[in-house]
Amino acid sequence: MSMKWTSVLLLIHLSCYFSSGSCGKVLVWPTEYSHWLNMKTILDELVQRGHEVTVLASSASILVDPNKTSAIKFEVYPTSLTKDDFESIFVTLINRWLYDLPKYTFLSYFSQAQEIFWEFTDYIRNLCKDVVLNKTLMTKLQESRFDIVLADALCPCGELLAELLKIPFVYSLRFSPGYAFEKYGGGLLLPPSYVPVVMSELSDQMTFMERIKNMIYVLYFDFWLQAVDMKKWDQFYSEVLGRPTSLLETMGKAEMWLIRTYWDFTFPHPFLPNFDFVGGLHCKPAKPLLKEMEDFVQSSGENGVVVFSLGSMVSSLTEERTNVIASALAQVPQKVIWRFDGKKPHTLGPNTRLYKWIPQNDLLGHPKTKAFITHGGTNDIYEAIYHGVPMVGIPLFADQLDNIAHMKAKGAAVKVDWITMSSTDLSGALKTVIDNPIYKENVMKLSRIHHNQPVKPLDRAVFWIEFVMRHKGARHLRVAAHDLTWFQYHSLDVIGFLLACVVTVIFIITKCCLFCFRKYAKPGKKGKRD
Amino acid sequence: MSMKWTSVLLLIHLSCYFSSGSCGKVLVWPTEYSHWLNMKTILDELVQRGHEVTVLASSASILVDPNKTSAIKFEVYPTSLTKDDFESIFVTLINRWLYDLPKYTFLSYFSQAQEIFWEFTDYIRNLCKDVVLNKTLMTKLQESRFDIVLADALCPCGELLAELLKIPFVYSLRFSPGYAFEKYGGGLLLPPSYVPVVMSELSDQMTFMERIKNMIYVLYFDFWLQAVDMKKWDQFYSEVLGRPTSLLETMGKAEMWLIRTYWDFTFPHPFLPNFDFVGGLHCKPAKPLLKEMEDFVQSSGENGVVVFSLGSMVSSLTEERTNVIASALAQVPQKVIWRFDGKKPHTLGPNTRLYKWIPQNDLLGHPKTKAFITHGGTNDIYEAIYHGVPMVGIPLFADQLDNIAHMKAKGAAVKVDWITMSSTDLSGALKTVIDNPIYKENVMKLSRIHHNQPVKPLDRAVFWIEFVMRHKGARHLRVAAHDLTWFQYHSLDVIGFLLACVVTVIFIITKCCLFCFRKYAKPGKKGKRD
Repeated sequence: MSMKWTSVLLLIHLSCYFSSGSCGKVLVWPTEYSHWLNMKTILDELVQRGHEVTVLASSASILVDPNKTSAIKFEVYPTSLTKDDFESIFVTLINRWLYDLPKYTFLSYFSQAQEIFWEFTDYIRNLCKDVVLNKTLMTKLQESRFDIVLADALCPCGELLAELLKIPFVYSLRFSPGYAFEKYGGGLLLPPSYVPVVMSELSDQMTFMERIKNMIYVLYFDFWLQAVDMKKWDQFYSEVLGRPTSLLETMGKAEMWLIRTYWDFTFPHPFLPNFDFVGGLHCKPAKPLLKEMEDFVQSSGENGVVVFSLGSMVSSLTEERTNVIASALAQVPQKVIWRFDGKKPHTLGPNTRLYKWIPQNDLLGHPKTKAFITHGGTNDIYEAIYHGVPMVGIPLFADQLDNIAHMKAKGAAVKVDWITMSSTDLSGALKTVIDNPIYKENVMKLSRIHHNQPVKPLDRAVFWIEFVMRHKGARHLRVAAHDLTWFQYHSLDVIGFLLACVVTVIFIITKCCLFCFRKYAKPGKKGKRD
Repeated sequence: MSMKWTSVLLLIHLSCYFSSGSCGKVLVWPTEYSHWLNMKTILDELVQRGHEVTVLASSASILVDPNKTSAIKFEVYPTSLTKDDFESIFVTLINRWLYDLPKYTFLSYFSQAQEIFWEFTDYIRNLCKDVVLNKTLMTKLQESRFDIVLADALCPCGELLAELLKIPFVYSLRFSPGYAFEKYGGGLLLPPSYVPVVMSELSDQMTFMERIKNMIYVLYFDFWLQAVDMKKWDQFYSEVLGRPTSLLETMGKAEMWLIRTYWDFTFPHPFLPNFDFVGGLHCKPAKPLLKEMEDFVQSSGENGVVVFSLGSMVSSLTEERTNVIASALAQVPQKVIWRFDGKKPHTLGPNTRLYKWIPQNDLLGHPKTKAFITHGGTNDIYEAIYHGVPMVGIPLFADQLDNIAHMKAKGAAVKVDWITMSSTDLSGALKTVIDNPIYKENVMKLSRIHHNQPVKPLDRAVFWIEFVMRHKGARHLRVAAHDLTWFQYHSLDVIGFLLACVVTVIFIITKCCLFCFRKYAKPGKKGKRD
């Protein structure tokens, strides 16, 4: 057995040397912040396996750190925005989500969220134009003879680049609004009866009223596909490619969709052979803490510690919210490590220590850690699942509300509302997940699912990228649905034809009956008359 | 990298030791002939990993060879039939398929094929009764405390045993008629627009007329689910379990469906997280041939050899068909190795040698092998794919016609009709697949797909069986669709409610308009009258 496995591994490990005597060349169209952190894990692994990785980044990009050397190459292209402009665009959009969106409910919430999304993609389209209309850059990319484009599907353009460079492309994706890209680009079939629309905060066990809500969301998002903003993309792609096409049609050419979840996180649903679920690929065992932090953690004794972070995108909260949180944390017997970059709250208890940055993964993997207060970013939740730490969720924006709803449905988290929560709410939630052993049991169940997969998520992600490079695609995984029009796909032409046949048969039978009736019945009548 | 992998492998290799300090106990509900050969590969691997495997076999079972010692235990239960009776039942059913079925076309073909299937399952139901109504045996099985039932889904009963023993179960399956078990038991969603019904011989690229044909097949099989024979199973299961239930409902509780195909063989289609595609798990590298055979193979020189077998279920053909085949083989420049157990045909050429049994896998893996004439059994086709040998298909019964149609669609085989073929047809087909390099290229493409999977099929199959034993199930892979009624699943209640709302709103608006019209328009009229 081990011999067999060793040879498979050797094959995988040496895989890049099979491709025409050299390793592959990967062109990357990334997204910023947590998306980038996730994708970087894949890129680092590719580099370690000997592939050449080039990331397309604008001169305003936040992900490029000029102070850091990296084996990943950055092809920086000029754009009209500055780094500060770009960052402030993100901050503005997030603040709108944080402070304006909670005022809306039901469909108006989605409509506002989408407005933010479209505004965001307007910037992305401009960046895309800065690349594809930059002739010098495109010639350079053409001459570089890349083997593959790896793109975050949330920010379109990767598929356009692949089309222009005539090379295959692979997506990395957490989700698109209403699963529109996965459904209408990728061909996924998601029955509204048990697959809740993303961001709906519904679970797969829905009541009748929840299924109605879900159906309305589905119809809404299908209608949304006709939006003006989608048409802007279609028009842009058609102009660049010189033929009538659409964003979704171009997306449909993806060889592989690497979705950043797995069944330890999301609810099981139908999928296709060219979808793989690689959630938590960035997770890794904890490293020892620095002495100062380790001493603080050890000082917690039996009670243990609570780790608290609201992620990389929210740097400050209002003073009032900060004080509510600090006084809640002061009430628990645990020591608290809080990632916080702002004015020290006056209600801060002696058990709480503030840090501008924390080694989150190492802390979550520490045996003293009892709970994790999180905004519910996908990467963060996966770290908690990986290390088996129950969560208190304070979701803020984007998919975070849905992520926490998932963890709540799986019994691994308690949610508090970041706008309305009181100190008692937060400390109560914390006490619940720590004192009630069911939360630890449930998150350990998820952890066992995560650790028990035939192949680790990162190795699978890299396997498929290498497969596509080696074989110049993965056409054998692509369903024939992509070659059908929407009415052919739904068999509407076939149903129409069969119905027409049935109607014709009924019509002919009726006519025959009437004819017979007239022929044999009328003479009688006539006779009577006569 | 290799360190990481080594630890994963070590975990997998030692996996059975994690389950309460000992390895697992597997109870098997098998099927005979090629199905058994495939399942035995999994069982041998389970035994090698230290698990205890017990196969339930009737006293009439063909798979039990009393002359062979095996690490697999056989729990032989009494049945009223003898081994000869059982074998003759199979032969009769196969002969009906071979000689009667080709007279039928379109739906009548399916209807006859299903009649054979239902007759076959009548025997299976009797065997199932011999087990579940045998109190001594059931007590013994209860006391044996098995961890899992592994069953071939084509022959129901495994799921009933698992229910009675209150343990999880995993299926191995090639296909069920019309995908009925996979769709209505497993919850698969297979759109008729691009997923051809099994045994239809259609590909995933269908013309309008083919899509109509496929839709009619789908409707026919859905209607078939209401068949009397299905109700016999439902009634039997309800009686045994003491509550109203059905075969399909019980099947729906499967933790995992291990389907014996992969995307190198079948056309890509949607599936669910608890489906894995482990086609070709029995394939292995070729071993050296015995001297006499190797000498014969080497004597073929540059021309190479052709391997010919019609599988384990068809032992004899009519003399006329045998002579047609023999004279066709005499016309090719290759040496031919023919697995044949009958009267030596008088047209046999000097290039052809007959053998009662051949080491098929070792022959297909021999570098001198140029082509494979096969009846198109799934196991046989997988051996050809594994070793990259182009095929001439002479399909006989069951899924063989469909299997050859798949290989033809993928450009790896030429089909000849076993009833109407002349010597020239067969020799011509053979020359085509040998002389036209496209067939070799295409089958090598399939071979590369087969060999390039993140984990080998056998290791995946065993992984999931061990997973289910370790975790007492795999509920995280199970879609919530199983908890819905058919009208909830198709959202008919939701659509009905929403339509009712729309109608009510239209009705109210119309009423209001009419009311307003009457109130403000009528006085005018009245005025006129006055």
